[in-house]
Amino acid sequence: MPLQHLQQVSKNNPIGIFDSGIGGLTVANAIASKLPLEDFIYFGDTAHLPYGDKSSDAICYYSLRITRFLIEKGCKMIVIACNSASATASKVLHEFYGKEIPIINVIDPLVNYVVDHNYQKIGVIATKVTTQSNIYPSKIHALNPNIDVRPLATPLLVPMIEEGFISNNISKSILENYLSNEMFTDIEALVLACTHFPLLKPAIKAYFNEKIDILDSTDVVLTEIENTLEKYGLKSEHRAQPHQFYVSDFTESFEKTTKIFYKEEIHLEHAAIW
Amino acid sequence: MPLQHLQQVSKNNPIGIFDSGIGGLTVANAIASKLPLEDFIYFGDTAHLPYGDKSSDAICYYSLRITRFLIEKGCKMIVIACNSASATASKVLHEFYGKEIPIINVIDPLVNYVVDHNYQKIGVIATKVTTQSNIYPSKIHALNPNIDVRPLATPLLVPMIEEGFISNNISKSILENYLSNEMFTDIEALVLACTHFPLLKPAIKAYFNEKIDILDSTDVVLTEIENTLEKYGLKSEHRAQPHQFYVSDFTESFEKTTKIFYKEEIHLEHAAIW
Repeated sequence: MPLQHLQQVSKNNPIGIFDSGIGGLTVANAIASKLPLEDFIYFGDTAHLPYGDKSSDAICYYSLRITRFLIEKGCKMIVIACNSASATASKVLHEFYGKEIPIINVIDPLVNYVVDHNYQKIGVIATKVTTQSNIYPSKIHALNPNIDVRPLATPLLVPMIEEGFISNNISKSILENYLSNEMFTDIEALVLACTHFPLLKPAIKAYFNEKIDILDSTDVVLTEIENTLEKYGLKSEHRAQPHQFYVSDFTESFEKTTKIFYKEEIHLEHAAIW
Repeated sequence: MPLQHLQQVSKNNPIGIFDSGIGGLTVANAIASKLPLEDFIYFGDTAHLPYGDKSSDAICYYSLRITRFLIEKGCKMIVIACNSASATASKVLHEFYGKEIPIINVIDPLVNYVVDHNYQKIGVIATKVTTQSNIYPSKIHALNPNIDVRPLATPLLVPMIEEGFISNNISKSILENYLSNEMFTDIEALVLACTHFPLLKPAIKAYFNEKIDILDSTDVVLTEIENTLEKYGLKSEHRAQPHQFYVSDFTESFEKTTKIFYKEEIHLEHAAIW
């Protein structure tokens, strides 16, 4: 059955992307460079950032409200560019909007990748709420109960990255503190289960002497987006408008920080949806 | 002219205290131990924490809503136990509620202390929003324009403390990174302009080899609270009810973290005011 909302939108309409803040810009940036014909509308919920410390109920409510905003703006697809929201709100978003519009999260493509590549022992680093949701072990075990999955909450990494500490002695010592946890002694791969973490990939690779695979969701999510656009006949034929970036609370400091995640500084528009 | 709301409350009613999260519990804890006859109601706005990255407008709105909640609960005085809220929302709270109830912030008592003690060159460490508000330089200069005030935003300290990193190699290296800033080379005192930071006092004293004064607001705010209770005839004669702790978003993790700030783990109640 065709999705309802798609009857009303053109395939040249934008993709809707959201995150608790600006970390999801790593996903937006990948779309901008790899799918150059697609427009997108990005929404960063900076009034509630970070989601990593919030309750699941609160994140479900925020995600529903933002998704409605993006649908009302004419988006043809929703990308939950945030592990905390993917872990806690993906199900409820599908219940509310699954019959209207395709919704992609950043967890399922990575779970499939892990299972397909026959890893036997993997570590996962994530925010508190993603870790406590137990989403990675439960989704991986639903596909293959024999994979040993070891999740660790690493709450200091998000503020550390937002402070711009990515490859200095501070980031090194914080990373060492987390990664030296004995649960990671013999893992074959480490999943970076937060859209901020791709920025730490070089440092994490170096910590493990390039001996294990460091997996982030960027590439696999991009493939999932492309396949889904294809499946619903939604691939855009041309750019129609500039990319749009909304935040629920505006500060100059956010605008400056976008550069870390989007490779260029961008203009943020305030959307007072709360 | 007597304050309006005070006509309706008894002097045995509780003091209302609020913060963006749980850092203000350092103030609540000081009240509990130094003013043992007083009850209080604490409100932590965990749905919006941390305030340090939010806009002034957003913090003003949050502070107004919380103050109304505390007044409706019968509080006889409001303590803004958060520098970010004191810096941005104190004026608007006085405009809205200054004729009803005494309102104390954590900045003015510390500003008076600095000026009274004839410091000539002081450093200030704080969140982004407190630093950008320029509140310490402007308030100090209004009293004495010759004092050299040097504020620095240190955004990683709050999440670092909430992670429990207070005296390990990570906290040491993060503190060193901030405190080695050349603006602090010849200061006589450093103001800890965040209610989380008293927990770092020993580490900061050690960094400066005990050679400069490290000032936090706890003691001076307590004196201000006592004087104000005295002034309005509001000193309680006996405890009437247990202290109450509300949060706008509940997670078990917050409840556990209270121990860091309140010296004992406490039960948090969810108040859905948003």
